[in-house]
Amino acid sequence: MRKKHSLELKPIGVIHSPYKNKGNTPYQGHGTEDISEIELFKEFEEGLQDIEGFSYMMVIYWFHKSQGYHLLVGTPWDDIPHGLFTTRSPHRPCPLGLTVVELVARDKNILKVKGLDAIDGTPLLDIKPYIPDVDKRSVVKPGWLEGKLRGKRC
Amino acid sequence: MRKKHSLELKPIGVIHSPYKNKGNTPYQGHGTEDISEIELFKEFEEGLQDIEGFSYMMVIYWFHKSQGYHLLVGTPWDDIPHGLFTTRSPHRPCPLGLTVVELVARDKNILKVKGLDAIDGTPLLDIKPYIPDVDKRSVVKPGWLEGKLRGKRC
Repeated sequence: MRKKHSLELKPIGVIHSPYKNKGNTPYQGHGTEDISEIELFKEFEEGLQDIEGFSYMMVIYWFHKSQGYHLLVGTPWDDIPHGLFTTRSPHRPCPLGLTVVELVARDKNILKVKGLDAIDGTPLLDIKPYIPDVDKRSVVKPGWLEGKLRGKRC
Repeated sequence: MRKKHSLELKPIGVIHSPYKNKGNTPYQGHGTEDISEIELFKEFEEGLQDIEGFSYMMVIYWFHKSQGYHLLVGTPWDDIPHGLFTTRSPHRPCPLGLTVVELVARDKNILKVKGLDAIDGTPLLDIKPYIPDVDKRSVVKPGWLEGKLRGKRC
């Protein structure tokens, strides 16, 4: 049982967004020009030094409205259910959200970003730089999602 | 203080890798052909249904060897320190690791993957499909890391 013990996290900030509930949240920020604000708590501000040089960041957050999960899930993009770990459903054993976002502007500890699909008030857990050499993969099979996302919103 | 309360996670599996400590771990799996095994605990196996259709996955894990952090950090790729959130240092307020990995094979609840840079025994937190339409960004400024990573290992 050792490997199943609980781990503890504390948020490092909070996300302010135009999305008040899941219903009007775009899938992975896909196809939206909406701006969200990432508020990093003041005590972490120094950790943003040099971030203006990056076009994109990977944001990890806590799906605070998530409750429970199913291992097979239905989605808006297919008629049959698929394995949870082949979807980006917010209902997961570890309710961690992940989105690649565009950095639009920074004002001290506040980052304005485009393409973030988190609900207003979402706890922020981490920010990582998007590094094309390691994060961008060019020849990929997108599984059952092939061709289903273009131009669609959830 | 409400927004700073603790959040609790339980691992969903464990990572078996050739890397016994940080010293021989490749940076984000960059430039390696090494194979690691992701063991998803049996009770979550059904959530892998259809994952064979995806070339790449995004793996989130717990930096279990991480202790403390600094907001400005030195790296092997530059002479000056940079903001923590512009690096992929394992020493972070929320010690969450993230790597895009190639799925090589699956045997029930075990995934063989290429490009994972986690130490042997690392707790697994989540697996998400890599979806080019939302995760791949083509025109990017890679900040202070520009040109520094190619062909190098940490």
